[in-house]
Amino acid sequence: MDWRTSVARQAAALGLPGEPVADAWRARYQPQLETVRRGEREWVVLDVLHREALDEVLAELGLDLPAEQRDELTLAWHRLDPWPDTVPGLTRLKRRFVVAPCSNGHIAQSVALARHAGLAWDAILGAEIARAYKPDPAVYLASVAALGLEPGDAMMVAAHNGDLQAAAACGLRAAFVARPREYGPGQEDDLHADPGVDVEAADFLALAEALGA
Amino acid sequence: MDWRTSVARQAAALGLPGEPVADAWRARYQPQLETVRRGEREWVVLDVLHREALDEVLAELGLDLPAEQRDELTLAWHRLDPWPDTVPGLTRLKRRFVVAPCSNGHIAQSVALARHAGLAWDAILGAEIARAYKPDPAVYLASVAALGLEPGDAMMVAAHNGDLQAAAACGLRAAFVARPREYGPGQEDDLHADPGVDVEAADFLALAEALGA
Repeated sequence: MDWRTSVARQAAALGLPGEPVADAWRARYQPQLETVRRGEREWVVLDVLHREALDEVLAELGLDLPAEQRDELTLAWHRLDPWPDTVPGLTRLKRRFVVAPCSNGHIAQSVALARHAGLAWDAILGAEIARAYKPDPAVYLASVAALGLEPGDAMMVAAHNGDLQAAAACGLRAAFVARPREYGPGQEDDLHADPGVDVEAADFLALAEALGA
Repeated sequence: MDWRTSVARQAAALGLPGEPVADAWRARYQPQLETVRRGEREWVVLDVLHREALDEVLAELGLDLPAEQRDELTLAWHRLDPWPDTVPGLTRLKRRFVVAPCSNGHIAQSVALARHAGLAWDAILGAEIARAYKPDPAVYLASVAALGLEPGDAMMVAAHNGDLQAAAACGLRAAFVARPREYGPGQEDDLHADPGVDVEAADFLALAEALGA
């Protein structure tokens, strides 16, 4: 999902500087997840973390917004637009494969994203069924187990090499699809697959082609 | 899903008496779940219970089948055909509502059913996310919570009054859709809604109509 453009647009609609808010908000994401991964706080759905981080971001940028609009803007993460190839690529992959998100998003968020964007998922797996956050191995292993599969029967597809390394360490196969402008025009990381990835594809349609779907 | 016709047909294809096998198999279902509900055994996916029950059913009926075919026949429960109104009704309900199974089936089974029958679910909830079996309240409450809802914002739809009573006791609304031949031509139970059900509809299309979808 193109979260940066989508969140920036929804922030701008409330009179905020869109891209600075989106970037500062996302910058707090991994440090927040880390507090759960380190066991400093119990697993909570991402909405809770996003809402807390929004308060910090607005304070940091010297911006104000009524509480009700902060609650509403938090749901911007439920209304992310897909990349242009996402929907046709998933639809094609689904003809041959069971397709499910193994995301740090929670079920309610993923349901909203699928309805917003028309994603053809067979099930919603990931963080909530494991009550842990990636790259905790529990998330990959619980997702595979929920499908009744062995890790080697599943493939993790991601735009982030760290995600793929963690999945591969659990025995899953790994496919990299670059999103070179996910973090904006200056993105320097995750432009190419690291060594050890099984498949690298330019987009989801190319991935479907490479996998014979 | 029309489990009786579907399982009978798949048993008959292996040379077994279809309906007697289907009926005897299903008769063991609630007593098996009861062993989990009473805490006598840990929660396991339904495949495990179905496979154990099949051995008992074949012994009871004096039938034999190689182990490999027993494993294969167990997956008949992943290949159930829908009632004629199921797919058009769910598709119409999904236009207005988030639709998810709150079933005692596990995620892998529900994924297979959806792919087999073309069911338009938004997510797969139910027994596996709670690691309990209905009518344990944990199943209804975990399913509602996964959608980020309060119980009163959700409606349980079922062909079984006991299921609806348990859901209503958790605060969900309840809709009854009769499946008067689910258990065959002699079915005597669950022909009509018990008192206290919010909506009774003849099929899923009538339910969609009644709910304004």
